[in-house]
Amino acid sequence: METVESRGDGGVYEFAGNPASPRLMAQIGFLAEIDRLKQVLRRTSLIGGTRRENSAEHSWHITVAALILAEYAAAEVDITHVIKMLLVHDLVEISAGDTFAFDLTAKASQAERELAAATELFGVLPAEQGAELMALWREFEARETAAAQFANAMDRLLPALQNFANEGGTWREAQVNRPRVIDRLQPIGDGAPEVWAFVAELVDEATVRGWILPET
Amino acid sequence: METVESRGDGGVYEFAGNPASPRLMAQIGFLAEIDRLKQVLRRTSLIGGTRRENSAEHSWHITVAALILAEYAAAEVDITHVIKMLLVHDLVEISAGDTFAFDLTAKASQAERELAAATELFGVLPAEQGAELMALWREFEARETAAAQFANAMDRLLPALQNFANEGGTWREAQVNRPRVIDRLQPIGDGAPEVWAFVAELVDEATVRGWILPET
Repeated sequence: METVESRGDGGVYEFAGNPASPRLMAQIGFLAEIDRLKQVLRRTSLIGGTRRENSAEHSWHITVAALILAEYAAAEVDITHVIKMLLVHDLVEISAGDTFAFDLTAKASQAERELAAATELFGVLPAEQGAELMALWREFEARETAAAQFANAMDRLLPALQNFANEGGTWREAQVNRPRVIDRLQPIGDGAPEVWAFVAELVDEATVRGWILPET
Repeated sequence: METVESRGDGGVYEFAGNPASPRLMAQIGFLAEIDRLKQVLRRTSLIGGTRRENSAEHSWHITVAALILAEYAAAEVDITHVIKMLLVHDLVEISAGDTFAFDLTAKASQAERELAAATELFGVLPAEQGAELMALWREFEARETAAAQFANAMDRLLPALQNFANEGGTWREAQVNRPRVIDRLQPIGDGAPEVWAFVAELVDEATVRGWILPET
């Protein structure tokens, strides 16, 4: 990972008389860079279906969900840690792009693309901050700790709520069947069992309504 | 503030056999309701200027800023508390709308509109959670605690970075002069003095470049 010193680039914010330290300029540069997450489109649409949502607003939504639903975590979790994971877990999509959950070809190359993206983006930050974000992202992806499992539950819950409110949403568009939807949403069960009991029934209801194909 | 019991309405998520408790349904209903924040447009544009940003993605951006710039807080702050404030502070805009910082007429009625919006929206939640969000919102607005001052600093920093990168952005569109911009951004000085030293110079540089009118 690059250090601040090797970079020393404040981009458009460099000008004569700028009193900011190289450290602050690296951090400002990072904050400007991640503005691009607002342009990464996901498949899921807003409730009401007016347009597809982007990864920045999705990150906000699932972070609020973690705050509101913390009481349902399967194990006691440090909610600050969960929130940090959720706020940064999608940043790699700035250069790797969002990978549609039901696109198996893209899924295959996802890990490699995202690791390269994480190394580059987090390298903009002062080293210890970049390392912290990298660790948060890896923890989220590994889904091994209780905090990561709860964070992943929130990440999968919201698209399900949006799809249901949109009379099927991406489930219907991609014509996925119930086993694949269950497989995708099952991590909610590891992180937040009581929420999963509700979501599992929601999937059944969506299947009854014809928004998800029955097992075939 | 309404209690869960008086509401008992899961909206589109009510269906026969739904195993969720009234409490969980109220929380799910709230999470679906706040999806609308993604449709509240602010005046500021994304960096690159392709479109105006919405309040949900802005809330995400400033929350990440708080994480990255925590070391610059004027006083020691509980970063979890700051993050919670930032995640929910714009929710009142769902029904009250975003108020442009340089629209003095709208500013005059802003407090009243927002209080009504907060009471209604937070009333959807279980009482103690609604009260917590109301308290966070009031604290943010009052700008009296160190945490609120740092949170407000982040809220004002990002639009300034975006405007500068967009060669003036809303400063230029609204033809505001330097004293008004300084007045708007000055709270950064209370919450994060070292960041303010940089932003004050950024404003001067933007004035030199003709993006902000000199004092008149």
